[in-house]
Amino acid sequence: MDVYAYLKENQSRFVKELCDYVRFPSVSAQPPHRDDLSRCARWLTDHCRQIGLEARLVKTAGHPIVVAQTPRKRAGHRPHFVVYGHYDVQPPEPFELWKTPPFEPRIAGRFLYGRGASDNKGQHLAHLKAVEAYLQTGTELPCDLTFIFEGEEEVGSQSLPEFLRHNQKALRCDAVVVSDSGIPSLKFPALTYALRGIAAVEVRLDGASRDLHSGIYGGSLDNPAMVLCEMLAQLRDAKGRVKVPGFYDKVLPLSAFERKQMARLPYHEPGYRKFLGVRELNGEKGYTAGEQRTARPTVEINGLTSGYQGPGSKTIIPAWASAKLTFRLVPRQEPIRIQKLVTQYLKRLCPRTVRLTVTPGHGGEPYLVSPQGPQAQAALRALKTAFRNEPVLIREGGSIPIVTDFKKILKADTLLLGLGLPEDNVHSPNERFSLDCFAKGMDMSARLWPELSQATLRRPKA
Amino acid sequence: MDVYAYLKENQSRFVKELCDYVRFPSVSAQPPHRDDLSRCARWLTDHCRQIGLEARLVKTAGHPIVVAQTPRKRAGHRPHFVVYGHYDVQPPEPFELWKTPPFEPRIAGRFLYGRGASDNKGQHLAHLKAVEAYLQTGTELPCDLTFIFEGEEEVGSQSLPEFLRHNQKALRCDAVVVSDSGIPSLKFPALTYALRGIAAVEVRLDGASRDLHSGIYGGSLDNPAMVLCEMLAQLRDAKGRVKVPGFYDKVLPLSAFERKQMARLPYHEPGYRKFLGVRELNGEKGYTAGEQRTARPTVEINGLTSGYQGPGSKTIIPAWASAKLTFRLVPRQEPIRIQKLVTQYLKRLCPRTVRLTVTPGHGGEPYLVSPQGPQAQAALRALKTAFRNEPVLIREGGSIPIVTDFKKILKADTLLLGLGLPEDNVHSPNERFSLDCFAKGMDMSARLWPELSQATLRRPKA
Repeated sequence: MDVYAYLKENQSRFVKELCDYVRFPSVSAQPPHRDDLSRCARWLTDHCRQIGLEARLVKTAGHPIVVAQTPRKRAGHRPHFVVYGHYDVQPPEPFELWKTPPFEPRIAGRFLYGRGASDNKGQHLAHLKAVEAYLQTGTELPCDLTFIFEGEEEVGSQSLPEFLRHNQKALRCDAVVVSDSGIPSLKFPALTYALRGIAAVEVRLDGASRDLHSGIYGGSLDNPAMVLCEMLAQLRDAKGRVKVPGFYDKVLPLSAFERKQMARLPYHEPGYRKFLGVRELNGEKGYTAGEQRTARPTVEINGLTSGYQGPGSKTIIPAWASAKLTFRLVPRQEPIRIQKLVTQYLKRLCPRTVRLTVTPGHGGEPYLVSPQGPQAQAALRALKTAFRNEPVLIREGGSIPIVTDFKKILKADTLLLGLGLPEDNVHSPNERFSLDCFAKGMDMSARLWPELSQATLRRPKA
Repeated sequence: MDVYAYLKENQSRFVKELCDYVRFPSVSAQPPHRDDLSRCARWLTDHCRQIGLEARLVKTAGHPIVVAQTPRKRAGHRPHFVVYGHYDVQPPEPFELWKTPPFEPRIAGRFLYGRGASDNKGQHLAHLKAVEAYLQTGTELPCDLTFIFEGEEEVGSQSLPEFLRHNQKALRCDAVVVSDSGIPSLKFPALTYALRGIAAVEVRLDGASRDLHSGIYGGSLDNPAMVLCEMLAQLRDAKGRVKVPGFYDKVLPLSAFERKQMARLPYHEPGYRKFLGVRELNGEKGYTAGEQRTARPTVEINGLTSGYQGPGSKTIIPAWASAKLTFRLVPRQEPIRIQKLVTQYLKRLCPRTVRLTVTPGHGGEPYLVSPQGPQAQAALRALKTAFRNEPVLIREGGSIPIVTDFKKILKADTLLLGLGLPEDNVHSPNERFSLDCFAKGMDMSARLWPELSQATLRRPKA
């Protein structure tokens, strides 16, 4: 029996296994579930062994990491790929909004409902089922595979970087494959080839040494809340561009090819506005909404704090005012440089009437894999065959910090091959996973390894 | 014995009486002190009777009002003046910062320490001692006097307007005298002839129907916190003037005479900056700091609220942002008109990408008594003789809402003849009252009635 016939024949068992897997309430954010995470990790380790992988449980300061690999046959130039996933899930609360209990998986139509079904148990189980098909049918894999499943993705992946560093040599690989994101629809299978980065900055202005009576003193000294507004109003221009000098200097412009790809994605402006709940959109002139939110850098105020915020009024000149800012970055922009430029600009804008403190926060590198490179092309071929639809190339506006870790520690690019759908309700009640995505995902994974191995072997050495 | 000799002879008894009065912990803001307020009001009523006044206690929904009047001799055109004071005091907390207990009055040098000594027990007791001198020496007063002492000044004077309305006829008068403010120093006795008014406005901008992930959506829609900053930054120009169209239309300009008076006040910029804790001042160009904070209108942001305000960062586009604003107004500006102009301006500035809600808050009329009018001149003469120094005319930047009530309900102007000093620590630990101010205050009050009566009788009828 060949790999694809095996996958087809065992579908109903795979769905049952996914149900077993979803049944573990592996909520990493909630300490009472610690044992559930351990039990879930053990189940996963055992499952990996049952399908023919060599698997082990790695203890960490937090929840364990499950590592599984294809039986060692490493010889010569056989490519090696790492597949990443996470077995921990988001908290299920609020329970009352779930139609059926979050950890009692239920199938309705072509969907499996349950917390973690899409994020991320279903998505990485598809990869395990594909490798099971190879191993159980005795079909030779053209590459070595190492699976890494962590239990702390939903709480910041604290233990993962250390694990990667400790196993840097063993994990040296030609690419990382991650299915932990989404595709626009079954008709639009997608490769996510770029992510935005982030640079956080906190701005605080101190005025008088205490809140002052606004009647007695108002008019003779600057109000830090007013100065803050005046400074922040200088962060973007009428065209929606960030006014920080040098901000766009290193931005890699969108190519005509990319913009054409993006234009293929389904988009309905009135629907998007309704979904957000706004009357009118606004973004950088000259770009579509899709480009603005995934491929262009921005500034956002995440929070404002000053003075009296309770009911009614308190007639004070607040002693201080602060704002939390994040800049979303695109490929070639560097978080630390951006934080420096922003700090310089704010210093320049700040009058001597208040004292400015700029505190740089976290930074995350933007990410880009050339969509025209051989590995991306290989992934697109696998997607096209599995989904029977022309795949799209997408950028995502958010950041996935582990991707930067893989790049920094393993020196490997990541192929983001999401299997989720926009309607999956990830992080929300009634999370579900499409069984079509599950099936097509296994098929795609099975096709990916020959394609990717060939592309890797043909790739010029760096 | 004449009035002034009587005052001189009885000083030490007066100080003892003030100590008795200060001993009542009449903290209106604290419900456990309710009985202390009643006891204090009864003591005050009895005291008024002892010195020869007709006095009664008036119950209110809150704390009682004490009303006392000179024995009725009203005939023909005898002027009638109302003297206002309050027997309630600010909470004494924090206790640990008091050198001696707040309700155990202590005399050190020429100061009497205790909560309420300056604000306001000592200041209105000076007026009572002056009238006592007239009554006990059998000196005829040239006018009728009615004293009103409330017990809710520190908690908003809730019951006073109703009391004034209910007794509108009996309280019809030629002027109200209030000693509940300050003078720059003993060398600068002062008449406060103008107060600023206030117009409060709350601004809220609503964007998306919920906080959004700033990575996934940021760049394609407006951030309400950013739009709020951009709008508020349009409230003043580089010269420190309020940019709301029509805002200055009705402003009564400062006269050369007034500016000359203000320039007489002691002012030391480095000292003022140090007191505030700022490196540099900033206000409307073309005016001194003293003018800016008392005689020019302003806008202040009293509070800003949006998004995430806790530690670290949360990468959201906040669903809404809000600001509390107050405009300080000067004579001829009308709070309701200003609220309308501000609302119109904000509506004009607001883009269609967010929903604007402007909620008008409280308003208070600015106040002005002509400093060159006969009553003001009479008060200045009394001040000059009592303090043996040329008095100054001052404006205050804050608002005293009861002054507006007197104008609206009693149709009478108020002469603000403060007896406090800047170092009195009112509303703070170690409140004290200058015994010199006490003595000079009695003297001034005794001299005020003949001066004021004459000025009133000579005044052309409105």
